[in-house]
Amino acid sequence: MTETNLRILLAARPEGAATLDHFRAVEEPPPAPRPGEALLRHRFLSLDPYMRGRMNASKSYAKPVEIGDVMEGQSVAQVVEDLSGTFAPGDWVLGGKGWQRFSAVPVHALVKLDPDAAPPTAHLGVLGMPGTTAWAGCTELAQPRPGETFVVSAASGAVGSVAGQIARRMGARAVGIAGGPDKCAYLRDELGFDDCVDHRAPDFPERLAAACPDGIDSYFENVGGAVQQAVWPLLNDFARVAVCGMVAEYQGDLQPGPNLSSVLRKRLTLRGFIVSDFPRAAPTWRATGARWLRDGTLKYREDVTRGLENAPTAFLGMLTGKNFGKTIVEIT
Amino acid sequence: MTETNLRILLAARPEGAATLDHFRAVEEPPPAPRPGEALLRHRFLSLDPYMRGRMNASKSYAKPVEIGDVMEGQSVAQVVEDLSGTFAPGDWVLGGKGWQRFSAVPVHALVKLDPDAAPPTAHLGVLGMPGTTAWAGCTELAQPRPGETFVVSAASGAVGSVAGQIARRMGARAVGIAGGPDKCAYLRDELGFDDCVDHRAPDFPERLAAACPDGIDSYFENVGGAVQQAVWPLLNDFARVAVCGMVAEYQGDLQPGPNLSSVLRKRLTLRGFIVSDFPRAAPTWRATGARWLRDGTLKYREDVTRGLENAPTAFLGMLTGKNFGKTIVEIT
Repeated sequence: MTETNLRILLAARPEGAATLDHFRAVEEPPPAPRPGEALLRHRFLSLDPYMRGRMNASKSYAKPVEIGDVMEGQSVAQVVEDLSGTFAPGDWVLGGKGWQRFSAVPVHALVKLDPDAAPPTAHLGVLGMPGTTAWAGCTELAQPRPGETFVVSAASGAVGSVAGQIARRMGARAVGIAGGPDKCAYLRDELGFDDCVDHRAPDFPERLAAACPDGIDSYFENVGGAVQQAVWPLLNDFARVAVCGMVAEYQGDLQPGPNLSSVLRKRLTLRGFIVSDFPRAAPTWRATGARWLRDGTLKYREDVTRGLENAPTAFLGMLTGKNFGKTIVEIT
Repeated sequence: MTETNLRILLAARPEGAATLDHFRAVEEPPPAPRPGEALLRHRFLSLDPYMRGRMNASKSYAKPVEIGDVMEGQSVAQVVEDLSGTFAPGDWVLGGKGWQRFSAVPVHALVKLDPDAAPPTAHLGVLGMPGTTAWAGCTELAQPRPGETFVVSAASGAVGSVAGQIARRMGARAVGIAGGPDKCAYLRDELGFDDCVDHRAPDFPERLAAACPDGIDSYFENVGGAVQQAVWPLLNDFARVAVCGMVAEYQGDLQPGPNLSSVLRKRLTLRGFIVSDFPRAAPTWRATGARWLRDGTLKYREDVTRGLENAPTAFLGMLTGKNFGKTIVEIT
């Protein structure tokens, strides 16, 4: 093999906003697989907001990436070599590790994909971790009910776009919050959201109130910050808030939270979660979502950047909402 | 009948802290019961923190008291007259209404009490609304489990003292937070709390941390403010917070809440409640608590002020922690 392993490392820990200076690209020989491992050539890398937390020194719900280590991430890949014989060269698998072109991964940690059943990239987004997060957050936490109003922020993103579609299936009126008129039009016209409000509009709080004339019964929180502050007064008694992400605050700009007297007065339930808290959600959603993809009732959009060397730029853009759909890097 | 009906009215709405000037006493003739109503002579009035919310103009989970109206509250009373024949004169009942000596109340809204089974005042505290609140908050929300650490604030109060005892029964280590060494000694030595921390100590956050070496798995919130801020960093992953009251902030001194990134990072569940959200809790707790009172394993303490005219002073004292036990006014 003459190709090198392009790898994107964490070069330094950000204080506040991350920049390109916090990443560093290196070229190394591909790793040599150990017994039980397959050598993978990554084809598509998933970029997700949680990765920003891994750049900090403090433990979040997972260990930080160490300085000089490869950035954490999941890829769909093709098998180059598997001495165990579990996979054949060219097989598509989910489970490539890190922002890099090659990885050597234990075969038991790989999931074989059928590229004819669904595009491999779907397993990074709509059917993968983000879609499963939407499924768990809706069915276990937000629990939208018929006749209720469900609101999701970062609604055109990989999680939010699926959450809104699931909430509509569960019978609720789904209102998205997204950045810009194009995303809002897409959510309304393509994905069937009942309404969508642009959080960049100067009168965003008033527009959100107008879009939710009966208040908000469940809120799928992906953003925090000013969006959260606009949602809060609209929450109805007994509303459920699924706290999935707060991407507006990942860069260190922590806002004061809502005073908890609102939690008491309105008898709110707030609950934080990550997808691995619900291990049964992944197989359930993979089967359910695949069925809806096949019958055409579940829709998704990908924002694909070509070239692993461009992953840092794509990642930073995603953190500020420049992406439009699931952020993916095609590894050339 | 020659006695007058002493009544304590809301004289003005407080801006910030309530004072004696916000109350006004009047003497009027006792009310004339209408068909279906019994005339009651109140014997013991319950004073509870929720009443502070009723003094504000804004709707909380219940309507405010109007200026010039009698303050809201519940009493145990004796029947003076019941033309329906449901109750005999002298019968003890729960259900007297308002800070006043007499009320006329529909007989269907009254609960007959057996003064030989439990002291009538127990139905205002340990077996009544506060005890039921503790029961619902523990069993439905905080859900302390064996081996876990349970923390309750305002721990010597009517709700907190029962909550800690229930949490111990449920197998958890119960740590109280109370104001002053006397209250802490009482909770440890008399009620069997595993530990108690004085929130007035200058190094309260460090003391609380020392009292919870394994962190906090469930927190019964009665106080808010600085106590809440000291509890927050100690919450463990998957901790449950039952938001029952925030008496430190009822006087208008609203603190910023915790940033919700902690809810996400630690996968917390926060849930607000009032006792009427759980209608089955009252009969369940009345029977359970009465059994524990009879066998001597459930303990309580009352802080009784004599004279309805002193109710405003007793109420204001309770809001700043001057009471020691369930606050009750004996109506002479």
